[in-house]
Amino acid sequence: MDIATVVGLVGAFGLVVWGIMLGGSLNEFWDAPSAAIVMGGTLAVLLVSFPMAQVMSLVKVMKKTLFATPQDPGAVITKMVRYAERARREGMLALEEESEEEPDQFLRKGLRLAVDGTDPQLLEKILETDIGQIEARHKSGKAILDSGGTFAPAFGMIGTLIGLINMLSALEDPSTIGAGMATALITTFYGALIANAFFLPLATKLEVRSGEEILVKEMVIDGIMAIQSGDSPRIVEEKLKSFLSPTQRSVADDAKQQAA
Amino acid sequence: MDIATVVGLVGAFGLVVWGIMLGGSLNEFWDAPSAAIVMGGTLAVLLVSFPMAQVMSLVKVMKKTLFATPQDPGAVITKMVRYAERARREGMLALEEESEEEPDQFLRKGLRLAVDGTDPQLLEKILETDIGQIEARHKSGKAILDSGGTFAPAFGMIGTLIGLINMLSALEDPSTIGAGMATALITTFYGALIANAFFLPLATKLEVRSGEEILVKEMVIDGIMAIQSGDSPRIVEEKLKSFLSPTQRSVADDAKQQAA
Amino acid sequence: MDIATVVGLVGAFGLVVWGIMLGGSLNEFWDAPSAAIVMGGTLAVLLVSFPMAQVMSLVKVMKKTLFATPQDPGAVITKMVRYAERARREGMLALEEESEEEPDQFLRKGLRLAVDGTDPQLLEKILETDIGQIEARHKSGKAILDSGGTFAPAFGMIGTLIGLINMLSALEDPSTIGAGMATALITTFYGALIANAFFLPLATKLEVRSGEEILVKEMVIDGIMAIQSGDSPRIVEEKLKSFLSPTQRSVADDAKQQAA
Amino acid sequence: MDIATVVGLVGAFGLVVWGIMLGGSLNEFWDAPSAAIVMGGTLAVLLVSFPMAQVMSLVKVMKKTLFATPQDPGAVITKMVRYAERARREGMLALEEESEEEPDQFLRKGLRLAVDGTDPQLLEKILETDIGQIEARHKSGKAILDSGGTFAPAFGMIGTLIGLINMLSALEDPSTIGAGMATALITTFYGALIANAFFLPLATKLEVRSGEEILVKEMVIDGIMAIQSGDSPRIVEEKLKSFLSPTQRSVADDAKQQAA
Amino acid sequence: MDIATVVGLVGAFGLVVWGIMLGGSLNEFWDAPSAAIVMGGTLAVLLVSFPMAQVMSLVKVMKKTLFATPQDPGAVITKMVRYAERARREGMLALEEESEEEPDQFLRKGLRLAVDGTDPQLLEKILETDIGQIEARHKSGKAILDSGGTFAPAFGMIGTLIGLINMLSALEDPSTIGAGMATALITTFYGALIANAFFLPLATKLEVRSGEEILVKEMVIDGIMAIQSGDSPRIVEEKLKSFLSPTQRSVADDAKQQAA
Repeated sequence: MDIATVVGLVGAFGLVVWGIMLGGSLNEFWDAPSAAIVMGGTLAVLLVSFPMAQVMSLVKVMKKTLFATPQDPGAVITKMVRYAERARREGMLALEEESEEEPDQFLRKGLRLAVDGTDPQLLEKILETDIGQIEARHKSGKAILDSGGTFAPAFGMIGTLIGLINMLSALEDPSTIGAGMATALITTFYGALIANAFFLPLATKLEVRSGEEILVKEMVIDGIMAIQSGDSPRIVEEKLKSFLSPTQRSVADDAKQQAA
Repeated sequence: MDIATVVGLVGAFGLVVWGIMLGGSLNEFWDAPSAAIVMGGTLAVLLVSFPMAQVMSLVKVMKKTLFATPQDPGAVITKMVRYAERARREGMLALEEESEEEPDQFLRKGLRLAVDGTDPQLLEKILETDIGQIEARHKSGKAILDSGGTFAPAFGMIGTLIGLINMLSALEDPSTIGAGMATALITTFYGALIANAFFLPLATKLEVRSGEEILVKEMVIDGIMAIQSGDSPRIVEEKLKSFLSPTQRSVADDAKQQAA
Repeated sequence: MDIATVVGLVGAFGLVVWGIMLGGSLNEFWDAPSAAIVMGGTLAVLLVSFPMAQVMSLVKVMKKTLFATPQDPGAVITKMVRYAERARREGMLALEEESEEEPDQFLRKGLRLAVDGTDPQLLEKILETDIGQIEARHKSGKAILDSGGTFAPAFGMIGTLIGLINMLSALEDPSTIGAGMATALITTFYGALIANAFFLPLATKLEVRSGEEILVKEMVIDGIMAIQSGDSPRIVEEKLKSFLSPTQRSVADDAKQQAA
Repeated sequence: MDIATVVGLVGAFGLVVWGIMLGGSLNEFWDAPSAAIVMGGTLAVLLVSFPMAQVMSLVKVMKKTLFATPQDPGAVITKMVRYAERARREGMLALEEESEEEPDQFLRKGLRLAVDGTDPQLLEKILETDIGQIEARHKSGKAILDSGGTFAPAFGMIGTLIGLINMLSALEDPSTIGAGMATALITTFYGALIANAFFLPLATKLEVRSGEEILVKEMVIDGIMAIQSGDSPRIVEEKLKSFLSPTQRSVADDAKQQAA
Repeated sequence: MDIATVVGLVGAFGLVVWGIMLGGSLNEFWDAPSAAIVMGGTLAVLLVSFPMAQVMSLVKVMKKTLFATPQDPGAVITKMVRYAERARREGMLALEEESEEEPDQFLRKGLRLAVDGTDPQLLEKILETDIGQIEARHKSGKAILDSGGTFAPAFGMIGTLIGLINMLSALEDPSTIGAGMATALITTFYGALIANAFFLPLATKLEVRSGEEILVKEMVIDGIMAIQSGDSPRIVEEKLKSFLSPTQRSVADDAKQQAA
């Protein structure tokens, strides 16, 4: 669970609700037709913009990358070193058993390929292709979220224009202008809110998390190839640590000492 | 038929119509001169911006890439494997007959070139040049749609300025301000609507579909060259599957088993 | 004469004039001081932004690339093939006569260099340098038009601010607000109109036309070098056709058959 | 202490406070709920956009690069030359003592690696990796500040919309419009102010300072490698001066003569 | 003196003053606190954004590149050819005397290095480093001017918000709204004016002039290296002319004939 994402979303929407209730009531800010135009309209043009399958997979991508806790690179190193030790002691075939219990799908696939004696170059190509697919999925997810951040305010403005034109055409009693304007502005408010408190920040987080996830996957590939080529556990560790920043490295060292 | 595009367009415009009718009548939102200024003005500056031939071909490009169902890469592989089998059993010339019944123009051309014994390098160059032309057509189509998405709101604003200036110059009876403002805002509404519910999402879809279409065409080139060089059907299949994502691969496998 | 450019410009400005006259009179939209601030201000800052010589040459560049009909690549091929035939039959020197009657300056220069027996590499370098200069001129022209599209609305806004401040400072008779606002908005209207119906579309067209003109010039260089190296007319034709899209190629073939 | 940053921040906020007090009182511009929505909302969406650790480290990055005086490249050269002299006279091991007193962490690490007889290629790789980490930290810091500069005005607008809708819904006494509008506009004011007087200029300064810091670190790497390879102090000086602009070079020369 | 820059600046500001005086008096447009907020605020955040030294050197860079007449490339060629003739007749040492009278600092430095018999590669490297420093200075100058063009309208808006909030909070006598609004809008006007009539066009001119100045300096390097290697004056001339466009070349030829 990525706590910052949840805290941030709750915080942003909570502050807005609190701000509304200080000076009025939430009722005045809920207007079902306005919500239908802004959210429905945004969803509709996202369907025009992207193939159905990509829009569908967005929910899964977001669940995996935005709300799941990212894999700790240090823990991955510890695990790879353990595999390297076992492979050294008992041979590659001993990893078959490990691969069955490995929860991470990508690492499991890599271990199996290695256990099966797949040619190292082919093994690397297969896993790199998988990374490429994941990257493409993330990139398409970010493009959809960015588009949402552009279209939501646009449909907010379209809704406000509809409200204004309706109100101005029927302008007989000037005392109703206030309420009419308020309703018209609600769609602009919805559009601005979901763009800035939902679509745009999630698009950025998806990009950052994507980079982290791919880094860990690259570490896994390097680790499996090192194990397969018979490197000693110490060398596997050294190779994988070169992926880490100094801070991460010392954290990983601490974790290792605690584990020892 | 790309259902998402149609559903999205119908949904976006339908929601807007529904939103209008909730608070007023459609009549108030139809103003022929406003439509003429926004749509006519946008079309006119697109003609200034792009050569006539490119603007003309946009309709054809859109029909092909936005409303047609994209070719299923799995089906293309199945077909190429069938051709490979026949070529193995009966020789390249047997494909002449197939090429006459092949509905896809690009694949038909490739088959004929292969049957005619065209030099592989020349065959690749000819087909790659065709892909280059298709890509250029898509790119120019996207540029026109993007320009439409920029100029439509601009002419919406120009129309609103005309309406405002006319209204303000003739301001005698303040009670008519409401109706005048409403009419003036209609062009802004038209410009925002056709930019955000038509031009911009279609420009994005065109780009996505273009990438998919070109991927399939690259697969066709690789497949024909493999068949021509006498690869076994199994190798042709392996080569073409490397273009697919894991999900697409398992879908293709299922399709194959069902066909078997 | 590039008809689309003229039709588009006439159409865009015509629609605006028609829109104005539907609801008022053209008189109300003509304000000489407003025009002076928007157009004069834009021109002044273009002079600050670009060297005088570049601003001067813009008119010439626009005349050549925006209103002139672009050279038909098919016609250029036909001409180059004719030169190739004559050079084959009567020798390179026979082209001297042709070069004197050749209306296209760039082709004439190329022919003369070839007739003079200029070293092929030097000939190519000289003509490529000329293309580079033309490209630089087009690029600087596009930059000026794009700047015009940015500064015109800015000066429109500056003019409107002047009008508003003047009107608000002298606000005594509220009934004059309408007329004052109308006059103030005219500069915004001028700025939006000349940016979106003149500067920005012409900048795009200049870029497109520049690409076409340079493609034809590249064809001329390749053609002259092929003729100089003694290629047969058929090979010259094949080489130059590789520059064309399939559609253009079939058009060129039709033209050739009609000529035959 | 980077005086320009401090003077600029104090100046910008001071001018705004002075401008407020000329025409009213600061009290009217302080509204705690508005501040909570703009600042809290911006912070919340920054947490959604970036991993918690990156947001946390921003404060440290800013303290180091924005308020600390950057290292003077001339002083670094003087120091490196002194080290080169000592290494020449007394051997590399004499630098061990120096390294213990060296305040700059990066230079100290480099000296120790050199004293330990680390292979030059490995030494360079280790230090370059450190620079890469610093660069990544600066880049992520700049991305967060830039996002702050985008989200602060957006939450300013969201706050103003809340205020306007609340005011318009409850519009009974038109004489309260003025005060309601004033309060509504305060969030727009806060958003514009912290974006333009805090986030955006600090993002630019961070980028500039990052470039300077990394240049000095590159100088340190080159200097240590030159010392390790036994270059004479004069050559070390020449090598490092090639990093400086002519102005910096003459300043460095003056400093050296004064020191002499 | 670059006349276009001066004419353009005078023209843009003159038109605005004329436009103001047509409908009111200059007095109403002068408000010292507004000017202090826009100009002071912009300067303050430029100090936050860029190191003090870079902001300081901007004035010098602007004086040199925006108001000085750029060096005529034709005149530079004529001069280089003269040096080449003298070097041929009397040997390199004869250029020592010339170098003392040469007004252009960069060319003087190059001549001295050549007279001193500096190794050609070293000579090129030294002069290219100087060009690199000049380019960096221009680039930083353009970045500052571009930032000014972004921050000036932002502080204009901040000033207007201060004015509006002050006015609305104290709204008792509705008849004073006009004057209050007018004063509030003056800062927006100042921001728009100095961004569009000063910062942004000067940023563009600086970029264009920078390209021209560096081209001439590259010519000087090539010329000195040709002279040093003993090229004949004719070859020096040919080499340098390859930098010019055809138009510049014929102008240079005319100049030479007049000189002859």
